[in-house]
Amino acid sequence: MRTLNDLGVSTSRPLELVNWTNEEGVRFEPAMMASGAVAGRFTPSYVHDRTDRDGARFGDELERIGYKGDRKDRPGPAAAYLELHVEQGPVLEDAGVPVGVVEGIVGITWSEVVAGGRADHAGPSPMALRQDALVAAARLIAGVDSIARSVEGAVGTVGRIAAEPNVINTIPGTVTMSVDLRHGDPATLASLFAGMERLAQEIATQTGVTMSINRFWTSEPTPFAAEVVDAVQASADELGIQTCRVWSGAGHDAKYMQEIVPSAMIFARSINGLSHCEQEYSTPEDLEAGANVLLRAALRLAGIAGERVTHTRG
Amino acid sequence: MRTLNDLGVSTSRPLELVNWTNEEGVRFEPAMMASGAVAGRFTPSYVHDRTDRDGARFGDELERIGYKGDRKDRPGPAAAYLELHVEQGPVLEDAGVPVGVVEGIVGITWSEVVAGGRADHAGPSPMALRQDALVAAARLIAGVDSIARSVEGAVGTVGRIAAEPNVINTIPGTVTMSVDLRHGDPATLASLFAGMERLAQEIATQTGVTMSINRFWTSEPTPFAAEVVDAVQASADELGIQTCRVWSGAGHDAKYMQEIVPSAMIFARSINGLSHCEQEYSTPEDLEAGANVLLRAALRLAGIAGERVTHTRG
Repeated sequence: MRTLNDLGVSTSRPLELVNWTNEEGVRFEPAMMASGAVAGRFTPSYVHDRTDRDGARFGDELERIGYKGDRKDRPGPAAAYLELHVEQGPVLEDAGVPVGVVEGIVGITWSEVVAGGRADHAGPSPMALRQDALVAAARLIAGVDSIARSVEGAVGTVGRIAAEPNVINTIPGTVTMSVDLRHGDPATLASLFAGMERLAQEIATQTGVTMSINRFWTSEPTPFAAEVVDAVQASADELGIQTCRVWSGAGHDAKYMQEIVPSAMIFARSINGLSHCEQEYSTPEDLEAGANVLLRAALRLAGIAGERVTHTRG
Repeated sequence: MRTLNDLGVSTSRPLELVNWTNEEGVRFEPAMMASGAVAGRFTPSYVHDRTDRDGARFGDELERIGYKGDRKDRPGPAAAYLELHVEQGPVLEDAGVPVGVVEGIVGITWSEVVAGGRADHAGPSPMALRQDALVAAARLIAGVDSIARSVEGAVGTVGRIAAEPNVINTIPGTVTMSVDLRHGDPATLASLFAGMERLAQEIATQTGVTMSINRFWTSEPTPFAAEVVDAVQASADELGIQTCRVWSGAGHDAKYMQEIVPSAMIFARSINGLSHCEQEYSTPEDLEAGANVLLRAALRLAGIAGERVTHTRG
């Protein structure tokens, strides 16, 4: 925006910048709550009533930090939506290119699995008489990993785990864990989930530990709009920036925006594919390449040929 | 004590009642800290400096609640030590007897195992490139269970687990867990631990997740004093109370007391072998039988034949 203003560029369609709240969904679930609300997936009251693990309401917390916006400030109807992000994975690095042209977002399903055993003293409880919820959970964790490894393009992760009573000399009575499964094809995603269900049933039968699965959130795979993907590709080509086509393994706000606006995304290479940790890093050169593809694609979609804007350096 | 006073019984040797602090070691490790201190295993400053997970010092907490005693109130030299406890396991119930004559305490070894992987985003990280600390931990948890099941009389438990960052859409980078291994024979206990070490090494080699084991506490198997065990047996026989001989799978203060005083224990049957949970229950009849064996054995060891004290009912 600053570059366009500095250069006095005007576009046929106005450009608008959106700073989404709570893309990650780590403290308040589900993820991408703000873009989901704008896309009509969630009502304002649903969004405001979400609570964190300590019971704090999302709406109250927004108000407390001065981030609760007005309806009138929502993004309006648009001809196209673009989102630039670091890749968060190793594909571009492996391919040796700085920028990814993102063709879509894989489907994701989130479940909470509760293993219900019996809390006994770790000493005097013979192995044969135990119902150890953590041993049952361990089999599910290893199984989710195996199931995902057996399917091309699939990933499966148990990210969160809590055992009760969680003391050294007591057999865990209850284990609660999250399961995150992802794939670009809806049928394959469904079969990954079904595989986990079968495994949980098997474990329950063999161990006497109950396994209950609550599939609380599913995001179907989202292919982006071909014309916007093409605009990104053409812009990168014009700038002489090497690219490859990728699918996003992570959810992004573009996912919900695609439901109401033709959308696409641009990825900048991540070193070691790391993100959501202190080691996350992309080189200034790769970020610049990504930003220039974004700028050029935005101008192309907003109705200016782009001749007046050359490869800017920040 | 009340019964003896009510009946005006005097003994050749004085009887003393001890209420040990922190037998369990759940909040402040290690377990059986007070009896360990009295037996000379731990110095007062070691005991007072133990901290809980929030950093609170044991000595400060004792002072805060008014439980910090004086050295002069410690139990003095003794001819014998007896301890009555609920069994906490299902052996007496299986055998159909109310009271167990405890011949000794199995050896216990406690370790902290840390699995060190790499925290990556759960979506864009292909399975083949992951170092998932929780998947590695799951293999260890299942393996500890298998190792213990393969050895007669052994138990093995992972009771405590914590994953970091412990969020739904991030591959766990670090998992910390406790491992509790127990057996009555020192060589077998050592081989159980060695089996876990080999397994951890295998997992590390196969997954690229580092596995570090800190064996922070070991309690060698403790056979009790034959003369005190015999006194317990003879007392139960005199009272016509059915017994069987058992080893304790859990640690008890008698373990440390045996190092300075000839000791033994008496178990009262636990329904479903449950303890350390709300369902823990022993019938009043079984508790009475256990208490009467304790009383009779104490009198026998304290130098009174016991003719004046009959089977009391509470």
